[in-house]
Amino acid sequence: MTSPIHDPSYDPSYDVVAIGNAIVDILSQSTDEFLAVEGMTKGSMALVFSPADADALYAKMGPGTEASGGSAANTVAGLAALGSKAGFIGQVADDQLGEVFAHDIRAAGVHFATAPRTGEPTTARCLIFVTPDGQRTMNTFLGASQYLPATALDHALIADAAILYLEGYLWDPEEPRAAMREGIRIARDAGRKVAFTLSDVFCISRHGDDFRALIADGLVDILFANENELLALADSGDFEAAVATVAAQVPTLVVTRSEQGAIAVRDGRRVAVAAEPIDRVVDTTGAGDLFAAGFLHGQAQGQGLEASLKIGAICAAEIISHYGARPMHDMKALVAEKVGR
Amino acid sequence: MTSPIHDPSYDPSYDVVAIGNAIVDILSQSTDEFLAVEGMTKGSMALVFSPADADALYAKMGPGTEASGGSAANTVAGLAALGSKAGFIGQVADDQLGEVFAHDIRAAGVHFATAPRTGEPTTARCLIFVTPDGQRTMNTFLGASQYLPATALDHALIADAAILYLEGYLWDPEEPRAAMREGIRIARDAGRKVAFTLSDVFCISRHGDDFRALIADGLVDILFANENELLALADSGDFEAAVATVAAQVPTLVVTRSEQGAIAVRDGRRVAVAAEPIDRVVDTTGAGDLFAAGFLHGQAQGQGLEASLKIGAICAAEIISHYGARPMHDMKALVAEKVGR
Repeated sequence: MTSPIHDPSYDPSYDVVAIGNAIVDILSQSTDEFLAVEGMTKGSMALVFSPADADALYAKMGPGTEASGGSAANTVAGLAALGSKAGFIGQVADDQLGEVFAHDIRAAGVHFATAPRTGEPTTARCLIFVTPDGQRTMNTFLGASQYLPATALDHALIADAAILYLEGYLWDPEEPRAAMREGIRIARDAGRKVAFTLSDVFCISRHGDDFRALIADGLVDILFANENELLALADSGDFEAAVATVAAQVPTLVVTRSEQGAIAVRDGRRVAVAAEPIDRVVDTTGAGDLFAAGFLHGQAQGQGLEASLKIGAICAAEIISHYGARPMHDMKALVAEKVGR
Repeated sequence: MTSPIHDPSYDPSYDVVAIGNAIVDILSQSTDEFLAVEGMTKGSMALVFSPADADALYAKMGPGTEASGGSAANTVAGLAALGSKAGFIGQVADDQLGEVFAHDIRAAGVHFATAPRTGEPTTARCLIFVTPDGQRTMNTFLGASQYLPATALDHALIADAAILYLEGYLWDPEEPRAAMREGIRIARDAGRKVAFTLSDVFCISRHGDDFRALIADGLVDILFANENELLALADSGDFEAAVATVAAQVPTLVVTRSEQGAIAVRDGRRVAVAAEPIDRVVDTTGAGDLFAAGFLHGQAQGQGLEASLKIGAICAAEIISHYGARPMHDMKALVAEKVGR
């Protein structure tokens, strides 16, 4: 006798469940000069390992605003805003920022039940320096997030989601890496799909072999990358060659290209979408995360590749039009207005 | 022998030092329906007394963004952004939100050295529901803020500031009320001016007699009020009558009138300024606070009443054009562009 989740005719209750970092972002306006003085690489994410270093950098930061973040968490918040049913698994500490994170993701309509972790370290913080061009440069103190244990996984939840979504950022610390491997096993056993975002070039430089092995083993159904990440994964300097190489290895490849829009390749068919026009790029934080949300929502709705890319582009445009990486507008209305559904 | 601060020819180092609530705002988009269901009075501030009630209300709130707030704290942050030298005295707890508050006000360029308070309650939080018309409705859990003791006052700092600025909100809890009375004494002994904002009609309904006594005793040099507060203070239903009554009792009266601009009366002379045009009212949180910042900055710069009102209007327009009650644009440049100085 099979349980509902092992019955091929069973329709999962959740569209997407994600495993990711549980982070509160601290955003502040900054300058190119500040990034240069601090030796930061504009547009990238760097890890800050010690609480003391995080505090020292915070002390140099201008006045900030706080908002829940975390790449995959932003994606599921976007999915819920669009009307998909989404869940999240991630580790916060038992502190005020942990309460903020838990409140925000639940208030967004996402199922979140990972128990807070007591004791040090604190909930993860990401110090985000936003330059006048709207680019975000991130310094993340992973705190409690890096201690997500495999035992925190809700097996039934993962098995009950059509897609398990994983972020490359979380591959860095050891415990969550093991948890994500376990999550993939659970999803696969239940006959579910796995989506993976490469997150940042530094993740590929540290764990590229792991990522390539996951792909070679057929464990990634939908792969999200930006151009630089794709080149790094394919170890290539040529975009078209990299697309051809990687697309041959994953059922669905999605590549975001900033103001050049995005492409998707599936079964040898390649489609492209232009970036949505926006008045002003205020803050690019979360653009990739919300693109993924839009694309996955389209897929969950049974839309084709083109329509899914278009919804992704609409969501990305919304998120870069304001501060913070969680939607601030009525996403359902926005998509309905722009694609008529 | 007099100390520098008792020397009439001594020029104080600080333009304004404020005593106020040390609050972190949690802002969320809301609806008129939600306010009605929760029995909130739109546009007002209500106190939430128990941590359990604050948590229960937070649980009902949508996804939020956090930003340092507090009425007088917003004013000194605005003053510093304009180039005035400002200090702040207020009580946070020894927790993450307290760190956020302390970081933000210092990063804004304001001197802040009040030691955090250990143990319960937590740092003050203000749950702000922003309706589509941009109006803010506030529910404040005062937490540690209500335990600011008179012993926390930096006497030398207050004596070294041309103006001591006080918020009516802080008159409600007993310890800070005593601290503010002591602050007034210190400022007066040093020959400094006292500015006071009535903050909210509920403050006048609870402490109007205290406020009227302060004014009658000649302890308020600059009084800030909005229309409703002025009417409540004068116990009048007629705006002109209320202006006449109150203006006769304070050296300088400033009344903000939302989209009708503001007026100031000094020595029987009344001047008015129109509201600055803005594209869209996003969030009125902090409008009065920043108006006060602009006005006090003008006064600190030796400007006349009209110019000071104009700077106030410019600052108020900036703050209502975005989420949050702390400036997000280059305020010096904004004022220079609009008034040419």
